[in-house]
Amino acid sequence: MSVTVPRGFRAAGVAAGLKTSGAADVALVLNDGPDATVAGVFTANRVKAAPVLWSQQVVRGGVVRAVVLNSGGANACTGAPGFQDTHATAEHTAASLTNSLPRMIVGAGEVAVCSTGLIGERLPMDKLLPGVRSAVRGLSRDGGPAAASAIMTTDTRSKMTVVAGTGWTVGGMAKGAGMLAPAMATMLCVLTTDAVAGPDLLDAALREACRVTFDRIDSDGCMSTNDTVLLLASGASGIEPTQAELTAAVTSACHDLAQQLLADAEGATKEIAIEVVGAADETEAVEVGRSVARNNLVKTALFGNDPNWGRVLAAVGTTSAVFEPDEIDVAVNGVWVCRSGAAAEDRSKVDLSGRSVTIRIDLHAGPAIATVWTNDLSHAYVHENSAYST
Amino acid sequence: MSVTVPRGFRAAGVAAGLKTSGAADVALVLNDGPDATVAGVFTANRVKAAPVLWSQQVVRGGVVRAVVLNSGGANACTGAPGFQDTHATAEHTAASLTNSLPRMIVGAGEVAVCSTGLIGERLPMDKLLPGVRSAVRGLSRDGGPAAASAIMTTDTRSKMTVVAGTGWTVGGMAKGAGMLAPAMATMLCVLTTDAVAGPDLLDAALREACRVTFDRIDSDGCMSTNDTVLLLASGASGIEPTQAELTAAVTSACHDLAQQLLADAEGATKEIAIEVVGAADETEAVEVGRSVARNNLVKTALFGNDPNWGRVLAAVGTTSAVFEPDEIDVAVNGVWVCRSGAAAEDRSKVDLSGRSVTIRIDLHAGPAIATVWTNDLSHAYVHENSAYST
Repeated sequence: MSVTVPRGFRAAGVAAGLKTSGAADVALVLNDGPDATVAGVFTANRVKAAPVLWSQQVVRGGVVRAVVLNSGGANACTGAPGFQDTHATAEHTAASLTNSLPRMIVGAGEVAVCSTGLIGERLPMDKLLPGVRSAVRGLSRDGGPAAASAIMTTDTRSKMTVVAGTGWTVGGMAKGAGMLAPAMATMLCVLTTDAVAGPDLLDAALREACRVTFDRIDSDGCMSTNDTVLLLASGASGIEPTQAELTAAVTSACHDLAQQLLADAEGATKEIAIEVVGAADETEAVEVGRSVARNNLVKTALFGNDPNWGRVLAAVGTTSAVFEPDEIDVAVNGVWVCRSGAAAEDRSKVDLSGRSVTIRIDLHAGPAIATVWTNDLSHAYVHENSAYST
Repeated sequence: MSVTVPRGFRAAGVAAGLKTSGAADVALVLNDGPDATVAGVFTANRVKAAPVLWSQQVVRGGVVRAVVLNSGGANACTGAPGFQDTHATAEHTAASLTNSLPRMIVGAGEVAVCSTGLIGERLPMDKLLPGVRSAVRGLSRDGGPAAASAIMTTDTRSKMTVVAGTGWTVGGMAKGAGMLAPAMATMLCVLTTDAVAGPDLLDAALREACRVTFDRIDSDGCMSTNDTVLLLASGASGIEPTQAELTAAVTSACHDLAQQLLADAEGATKEIAIEVVGAADETEAVEVGRSVARNNLVKTALFGNDPNWGRVLAAVGTTSAVFEPDEIDVAVNGVWVCRSGAAAEDRSKVDLSGRSVTIRIDLHAGPAIATVWTNDLSHAYVHENSAYST
């Protein structure tokens, strides 16, 4: 599993003391090559954390040798000093790698940085930099799971995936347990592949994959300052997939990770798929799905095992999608509780005892479909987010 | 207090058995004239309840003699039969009034209808129509408070207001304890005045009043199918205020009712004013205020008495307003915890022990200001909305 399954990658996860719990909090992923191509997708939030601003520049350069990630502090809203901390972290990682590796000189401009945790506080650099050195020493071909653990915050388990191509693979790790929202929100994800692929091929694959996976998870409608998804290619397999092959594998990896994130969202008791069908176009299908996914009354109803289709209709009614209110059908877990905008099958037939809920909305306005995933709104969500300062 | 303070109005509130609790559930407001001018503002939700579709037509006619309101059922998403129920209610009210009043013939087209309660279920007409007759018999110059009580759903108290003009007054009642959101969401409001005012004057006053009061309350971001605000004028004072005078009084009445709604929002422990200053224009100030008001992470933080300015910045960052992230200042209850996009005064200085919270956000982008009001997101909100089917 994880980022070290594809050839050409090593990783490590160590405890640097950023987390008061003493758990692992610094991860490092190294691309041993021969290639070091990269693509990245970042938060759409205009308030971007220092590591996002840094990594956007690094990715633009087209070459990334290493990604250093820390939990225990987001380094967001920390001003110019926070950006200097990120820069110093990249410099320190590059220097440590150059010192420890034979025949490899790594520049700071080839090191992406990701951070997650509390917003608005400086990172304790006196702990982070020794942690980076420790991670460099710990780099291993088996280090993927340790790296995946080191990036956890309120996650209750680490998230890893592997997807096999023909002679090449895609591996990945992710973290994120709240603030999942369009454009990805509080999640970090590193994907690796031993395929031979230039930056443009990687970029096209990653953007399409994010568009239909991470961008359609909307756990609580909140968008983070730190979201980062990186895709690194080592070329170590010597095989060059087509764009379609690469996109399919990366999409599959992202879908798997996205579903793992959703299943571990803070305080959730349900994973809810909102399938919109019969939309005039895909954009409208997504708009309708998202309006339902973000509706606190729908989310609390599902927490209470109440198949409240009236709240679904009220949410759909706030959108600008093409539909006639008296033509909408709604099914909850397969029972069409609403037909033509009014009550239909008996709601007592709906079984909401499990974690998995599917709401299907037929707009009868065209051929397009889309699915948006969300969670319910529970007491535990309120508890976790009122007690834990992110 | 309430709708019967202005001259020319009578009202009643009776129990018709729509609520299983046996509490009052049918209200009637009668305009004895001499005028019967009206203006109305309705939900922006495209899924509109039958009484909204009916009352929009009635208001377009420019004359409203009576408003009949029921709690215990929203008559939303009930299809053509639901609309027929609304029509029958108006017809029955008109006939009962005509039978009981000397020298007055009331047509169904002069009777506005409002409903609130569960979505998706037909009203029990066998209870509602006798209730209407009972309300007609109970009409009284002192009936305002009884009417205000009869429209309550999860409200814990009735909402009434009076604003004095010079020789004329505005009275009002409202209900709403959840789904407060732009364009008003699950609230009913009837305003009365004995001023002399034509439909155009009333309409301009009511739209401006709603724009800066009800439209800027955003309790949980959800928009209802039934929102209705009506303003009736009897002309009984014989005094014709200017547009500015009428708008000021109606705005004041709406502001008072809006604050009462906010203070009684389902499960809330805080009333939160989000004051945006330094915006490029008022639209952007409202956009920024609303993005913060709807952010579940901000709302849960405040429930936990956590002045989490990082979450405020993350919410602001999702908007398209003009600002530079490193220029934003944020104060919570007067303490500037964030200056220039980074930590400033010690957050431990912030006193969040009371119910009232003010978040001031300075965008440093222009002269415009706006305030949006919201509530926190509490365990009680989750409980009430997962246990109660609206």
